[in-house]
Amino acid sequence: MLFFENDYSEGAHPYILRRLLETNMEKLPGYGNDRYTEAAKEKIRCAIGNMDADVFLIAGGTQTNLIVISTMLRRYEGVVSATTGHVNGHEAGAIEYTGHKVLTIPHHDGKMDAAELDGFISGFYGDASHEHMVFPGMAYVSHPTEYGTLYTDAELSAISEVCRRWDIPLFLDGARLGYALACPESDLTLERIAELADVFYIGGTKVGALCGEAVVFPHKAPAHFLTMVKQQGALLAKGRLLGVQFDTLFTDGLYREIAANAIEKAMMLKGALISKGYRLAIDSPTNQQFIVADRETCSRLGKDVRYGFWERIDDEHTVIRLATSWATSSEDVGKLIDIL
Amino acid sequence: MLFFENDYSEGAHPYILRRLLETNMEKLPGYGNDRYTEAAKEKIRCAIGNMDADVFLIAGGTQTNLIVISTMLRRYEGVVSATTGHVNGHEAGAIEYTGHKVLTIPHHDGKMDAAELDGFISGFYGDASHEHMVFPGMAYVSHPTEYGTLYTDAELSAISEVCRRWDIPLFLDGARLGYALACPESDLTLERIAELADVFYIGGTKVGALCGEAVVFPHKAPAHFLTMVKQQGALLAKGRLLGVQFDTLFTDGLYREIAANAIEKAMMLKGALISKGYRLAIDSPTNQQFIVADRETCSRLGKDVRYGFWERIDDEHTVIRLATSWATSSEDVGKLIDIL
Amino acid sequence: MLFFENDYSEGAHPYILRRLLETNMEKLPGYGNDRYTEAAKEKIRCAIGNMDADVFLIAGGTQTNLIVISTMLRRYEGVVSATTGHVNGHEAGAIEYTGHKVLTIPHHDGKMDAAELDGFISGFYGDASHEHMVFPGMAYVSHPTEYGTLYTDAELSAISEVCRRWDIPLFLDGARLGYALACPESDLTLERIAELADVFYIGGTKVGALCGEAVVFPHKAPAHFLTMVKQQGALLAKGRLLGVQFDTLFTDGLYREIAANAIEKAMMLKGALISKGYRLAIDSPTNQQFIVADRETCSRLGKDVRYGFWERIDDEHTVIRLATSWATSSEDVGKLIDIL
Amino acid sequence: MLFFENDYSEGAHPYILRRLLETNMEKLPGYGNDRYTEAAKEKIRCAIGNMDADVFLIAGGTQTNLIVISTMLRRYEGVVSATTGHVNGHEAGAIEYTGHKVLTIPHHDGKMDAAELDGFISGFYGDASHEHMVFPGMAYVSHPTEYGTLYTDAELSAISEVCRRWDIPLFLDGARLGYALACPESDLTLERIAELADVFYIGGTKVGALCGEAVVFPHKAPAHFLTMVKQQGALLAKGRLLGVQFDTLFTDGLYREIAANAIEKAMMLKGALISKGYRLAIDSPTNQQFIVADRETCSRLGKDVRYGFWERIDDEHTVIRLATSWATSSEDVGKLIDIL
Repeated sequence: MLFFENDYSEGAHPYILRRLLETNMEKLPGYGNDRYTEAAKEKIRCAIGNMDADVFLIAGGTQTNLIVISTMLRRYEGVVSATTGHVNGHEAGAIEYTGHKVLTIPHHDGKMDAAELDGFISGFYGDASHEHMVFPGMAYVSHPTEYGTLYTDAELSAISEVCRRWDIPLFLDGARLGYALACPESDLTLERIAELADVFYIGGTKVGALCGEAVVFPHKAPAHFLTMVKQQGALLAKGRLLGVQFDTLFTDGLYREIAANAIEKAMMLKGALISKGYRLAIDSPTNQQFIVADRETCSRLGKDVRYGFWERIDDEHTVIRLATSWATSSEDVGKLIDIL
Repeated sequence: MLFFENDYSEGAHPYILRRLLETNMEKLPGYGNDRYTEAAKEKIRCAIGNMDADVFLIAGGTQTNLIVISTMLRRYEGVVSATTGHVNGHEAGAIEYTGHKVLTIPHHDGKMDAAELDGFISGFYGDASHEHMVFPGMAYVSHPTEYGTLYTDAELSAISEVCRRWDIPLFLDGARLGYALACPESDLTLERIAELADVFYIGGTKVGALCGEAVVFPHKAPAHFLTMVKQQGALLAKGRLLGVQFDTLFTDGLYREIAANAIEKAMMLKGALISKGYRLAIDSPTNQQFIVADRETCSRLGKDVRYGFWERIDDEHTVIRLATSWATSSEDVGKLIDIL
Repeated sequence: MLFFENDYSEGAHPYILRRLLETNMEKLPGYGNDRYTEAAKEKIRCAIGNMDADVFLIAGGTQTNLIVISTMLRRYEGVVSATTGHVNGHEAGAIEYTGHKVLTIPHHDGKMDAAELDGFISGFYGDASHEHMVFPGMAYVSHPTEYGTLYTDAELSAISEVCRRWDIPLFLDGARLGYALACPESDLTLERIAELADVFYIGGTKVGALCGEAVVFPHKAPAHFLTMVKQQGALLAKGRLLGVQFDTLFTDGLYREIAANAIEKAMMLKGALISKGYRLAIDSPTNQQFIVADRETCSRLGKDVRYGFWERIDDEHTVIRLATSWATSSEDVGKLIDIL
Repeated sequence: MLFFENDYSEGAHPYILRRLLETNMEKLPGYGNDRYTEAAKEKIRCAIGNMDADVFLIAGGTQTNLIVISTMLRRYEGVVSATTGHVNGHEAGAIEYTGHKVLTIPHHDGKMDAAELDGFISGFYGDASHEHMVFPGMAYVSHPTEYGTLYTDAELSAISEVCRRWDIPLFLDGARLGYALACPESDLTLERIAELADVFYIGGTKVGALCGEAVVFPHKAPAHFLTMVKQQGALLAKGRLLGVQFDTLFTDGLYREIAANAIEKAMMLKGALISKGYRLAIDSPTNQQFIVADRETCSRLGKDVRYGFWERIDDEHTVIRLATSWATSSEDVGKLIDIL
């Protein structure tokens, strides 16, 4: 059985496990005060070109979303997201559980449009009864989006500009950020994201780590952020588990290198899909490829391949997802292409 | 200046103030344990034709919404509302503050459609990843809606049937319920609503009271409801304030009678609007009338009339609201018609 | 049956009802934007000697406590209270429901001690693991306390000084503030309280109003306080109900005058209790008197008097509360004394 | 430098890392649906002697506490804990952040007393105003306690009996459960705990794992527990990280075996402490030993040993903690004893 269901089906990149093993019996302080966490943070600061940034390591993506949003919003504020934003639909109401509304605007292949964001906020303040409404207090974008698409520098700059004009932070969910950075056609660098966003994270779980997301506050984290992380149950006693992983990922360009594998394999796959006449549901430049498949195709592929169901279109057609990752082998992609 | 801005611009119906005065110096138990609150509840039970119903009196509408929703939902559930539902847009995120998401489906002149509700819920359960999503745990409808429109018995029955099939409660926000009941063409009675809904409230604030909404649980209130009302700061020490008001409103048909005044005046106004060529934004049978007005009309009317801004359509046109109430006089409506 | 069970057993002072009646049919803006609310706020500013203060009117005491605390605390902070504080034991977990812990220190006849407060906070910061603990973010005192006792100027000044040194606000719960101010031996004036506290409220519900507490922020209310009041369901559409009441209470010294009645009657009662050999549980200078009663006394008094059970001491003895109010008549006190 | 500061200073037991390595490249389903998680659960069910138990794996201790408590309590309920309970003081208000109060009763060397628990609950229901208070909805005990002490079977049975009489669940925090089970004098087995508690967890983080706590519901987990875990950000995409660890810990008795090492070393240390005349602050049978040290001793030890500060007693004396773990070597204990 070939496995293209998602990008978190293996454990960690072998280098990470090796480092965990090498450092295993060192006696280290807990709660992220160890030397590996410190080294990881420093390397991330280098990678984003901002040595003053605050960096925190958190175990999972939904956890990071809910912590960032709930620590940065004021009580009367909500977060503005495209309807397709992960925080809106697939986090079991995690944001609302912290007391905040997800305010939605339309998506365009998973992306938010700067002008629509601006219109939403100006509409809010233009509404005479806005004091009875939820204030837009942050913009949330995923990059790559939930649909595998990417913001251009121009698009993200425009959103950033809107946020700064209205004085709200821009939060970029980078659960798969590595895969965006590894796209040859993408013009958004890590340094540039650190300029445009007020907070973002560099996803580890889906890019080679066992777990872990590195949250970056280019300016400054909320006061007593650590206490709030603890309050939400997200402070690991053995912070080294995250520290060693990110230290490894940000040593010798490993993060970028392994992400590039996913893109390379995805582009092989995408080429084959197109040449074999499959209909792409979205034109994705990243590691998630979406195709419209009829019932027969689903059934045929399903015999040999585990893929992800994405969305039902009608009785006959479904959008399915084929995902590559840091761990996808050329051999498996070859086999998949043969089957297609 | 004529005042047609809303339906809560006067104090209380004079009978209510008279009863407050008459009973003022009686020494009564607090927290709703007084005889007037008990009498009010009993009269409401009679009015809905269900002597087993649990009835509670709460000061305000948003307060009632957030208490009902947060006490009835399970932690992993959200409330399904039309996008135009008051809980979705105009309660400052009160529902989310209690930890729950408002799940939205389209509206049709402010109304939810039973088939769309059913589709939403079946879509949820049909989604393979629904355990990562917010469970639909209640349906919320306003009657009259925020647009002044009314559900028919057939429509509400269909929604109720969907709710029962999926085993979720149906909550009817009756902040202006009196005005619905007083519409001659409406086929939904109070008794019928008590059969179809699992919880609803009979609005006092907008129908003759200084404050107060009577929440009705036709079956049974959540256990320890009073404690949760207290926990949300909504338990008045002098519960008599609400008790005396609802006791008065439900004595000798006062509630229906004063609501009928609003409808009568609204229909006079509506007739005049139509005959004078105004464009109705919605065909409302209740006390709120919405017209599309151009800039000149807004400015002209604004000299003599306070009306409500509803929605900006384009640079030139706005939807404005003209509301009547239990207190609207024939004289004022006459003057308004002359000005139109 | 004589009624000395609590101080909220009657409706409102007759002047208040009269004003409600007089202003009843005026068409006024909603949500506290009416002229009576504005007048009430202005009179309160005069009374506290601070024309820059922000004043808000809220319906109930628990509601006010939870709103003030939850809008002023940061997410990682709790409120420090004496164990006997109303917020700690008798509000059904309202503070915790907003996400904040009530941190407790010992009480002394219901009062917090400044040195102990200081010790608690310095102990917190002295604890090496305090980042894993709840930060003390506010001090809460009741005046009069739940035991009817009063802070002296020196005591409250010391607490205020501790709060300012640690840079946390001091919140004074004045649900019965009128009764404190009316005590001849009390040296704390309203002006002085407005200097020492960072937020406090002037209770209406227990001092002559149907409902209502006037929250005062001598410096400045939290940004978008109104929206957060709405979010917690506490914004009355007919804000006039509160506005007219406080406007009346703060006209011609009514608030102080009616509070003085309660104290005068309480002192008559206290004198009689002492002279008849009753054992006072607490030496209270305010409208609540607490006596230790044996079973026989409880049973004897219970035939003619409704009193409050306070606390069981042992099988034989109970502390009971006898409360006077703005409405207590000399006649009733006389009758009670005869029975004692 | 010798390290006796805590029991989470190393990584994982080598067997665990070996298994992570061996299974690393297997393609497994996410979110705990993998075969290792299933195997771990099954082995835990065997170990507790209850094949019907629901078992979930969660990354950290505070996280587990807040999830268990917030999913099992009703909205109007709080959790009863000894004042020393971890949930009361050292979780940054995590429980309150979920909306629930921690209700405290006195501790006895860290333990709750069954009779006092019973008295607290009966006192609650005996209070005429208990509907205005937080209902006791769960009892929380730590075993070993935060002071290293252990409940006897008789003690825990009595607490369990009280809980069942009042129909509230008993929750046992087993962050260090392995160290309790490994105590020769302890008469509480895992099977017995699974009979007495309604929910408990088997700590991994402090007993050989990189992270992870295994929550056991001997009867049945709350409905949709997984969704609520997700809602609180605690559902790891790569659930295998926890699955492989617990599968390893519960294979061939590893969990008990490595816990026994900590106890053996702690008893060596305790013996030396006593024979050298140190004053034990608490008579702990587990891996945490507490001594009262004067300033000079602290300073002398501090040169060679990292220990934990526990509590300041007076200007001259401090309670310090010396902790052993699964990883403590005889050599290190020997060196420590030489220094003492």
